[in-house]
Amino acid sequence: MLPPELVRQLAFLQEIDRLKNVVRLSPLLDRSRRENSAEHSWHLALYAVVLRDYAAAPVDLARVIKMLLIHDIVEIDAGDVPFHLPETHVGQAEREQAAAARLFGLLPAPQATELRVLWDEFEAAASADAQFAKALDRFQPMLHNAATGGGTWIECATTLEQIKQRCQPPIERGAPLLWQAALALAEAHFRADRQRDLKDHGQPQKTGTFPTSSAWLQSPK
Amino acid sequence: MLPPELVRQLAFLQEIDRLKNVVRLSPLLDRSRRENSAEHSWHLALYAVVLRDYAAAPVDLARVIKMLLIHDIVEIDAGDVPFHLPETHVGQAEREQAAAARLFGLLPAPQATELRVLWDEFEAAASADAQFAKALDRFQPMLHNAATGGGTWIECATTLEQIKQRCQPPIERGAPLLWQAALALAEAHFRADRQRDLKDHGQPQKTGTFPTSSAWLQSPK
Repeated sequence: MLPPELVRQLAFLQEIDRLKNVVRLSPLLDRSRRENSAEHSWHLALYAVVLRDYAAAPVDLARVIKMLLIHDIVEIDAGDVPFHLPETHVGQAEREQAAAARLFGLLPAPQATELRVLWDEFEAAASADAQFAKALDRFQPMLHNAATGGGTWIECATTLEQIKQRCQPPIERGAPLLWQAALALAEAHFRADRQRDLKDHGQPQKTGTFPTSSAWLQSPK
Repeated sequence: MLPPELVRQLAFLQEIDRLKNVVRLSPLLDRSRRENSAEHSWHLALYAVVLRDYAAAPVDLARVIKMLLIHDIVEIDAGDVPFHLPETHVGQAEREQAAAARLFGLLPAPQATELRVLWDEFEAAASADAQFAKALDRFQPMLHNAATGGGTWIECATTLEQIKQRCQPPIERGAPLLWQAALALAEAHFRADRQRDLKDHGQPQKTGTFPTSSAWLQSPK
């Protein structure tokens, strides 16, 4: 007979296997397919290991890593909503709350509480640890987009201004230098994008859908 | 201009995106596809978080998690070799050493050394932290196999005796109770497997290939 605690822990570890089938909008860097939320969480945990010195305030790296490992688990029930498609965000907070109750609730009580508290802290950006973790969660997709010719910026028809509005506050708050890096990469992308449009069409294009790259002009500036 | 340290750190974080395309033999629990080494590493890191109390000796959880996050990175260059196919292991240690030199070498020197030392410690099982991490790395596939009707045990025609020989030492050393759990699951699988064979064929079958489940009889006992 296995101890009942272990049975619950193994049930949780089995259930979260499903995060490997939650597919995000973001592409892998080789553009072979879209990224899933489990491998995204792995990647972010290593962002924290490697980039910890850029945190805006001293952080407890172990807590930051744990937050990043669990931050997307709720998507097993609630699904992933693309950051740059705000219209998909309606009701998502409630769906994620219900998912957190169910999923963390699979664990024995003390551990369920420990991970739920950590997830709530992340969601609310309620500490330096959470703010750094959130900054990384916004920073990594910017790098992937810049490295894949636009990625979700193009699919979501996102402008440079929208990127600044949405990404600067969370990234700059948690890791100011990383915001400078991400902004430089985004600006370079949109500059190259504009030059391509001018070269190909003699003038900037008004519309653009994946995989073209002129979406930066779709909103007024 | 980005600081040269950050440029190297981002180059490393981009390069390791390729681990998402290193496919293991193990199936996901829903059997929809095989697992990749990046999502496997994420899963193992959460095994460490959830199962830390089963470590054979006191461990530094943050170090265990870091080891598990980086333990498979060398597969980007060296590929994954299935644990239950020993014939594929020839030359793998050398390939992984070269991969570790190249991949960790992408980072600025102090960080490259830090992660390389941690990876070496894991490989050599040279501490209680590494022994617990290695135990989890052997434990998770046993759970997946038991939960998917045999998984790689069937594909590799692995017997219960071989599982004991190969998995008991590393799992029992790092997490004795988890070995008891894994053994109970494996025994239940092979018992059910044998009963199925007797029912379907009137006698145990001598051969079995994926997706049948009689591989347990392929080796002499």
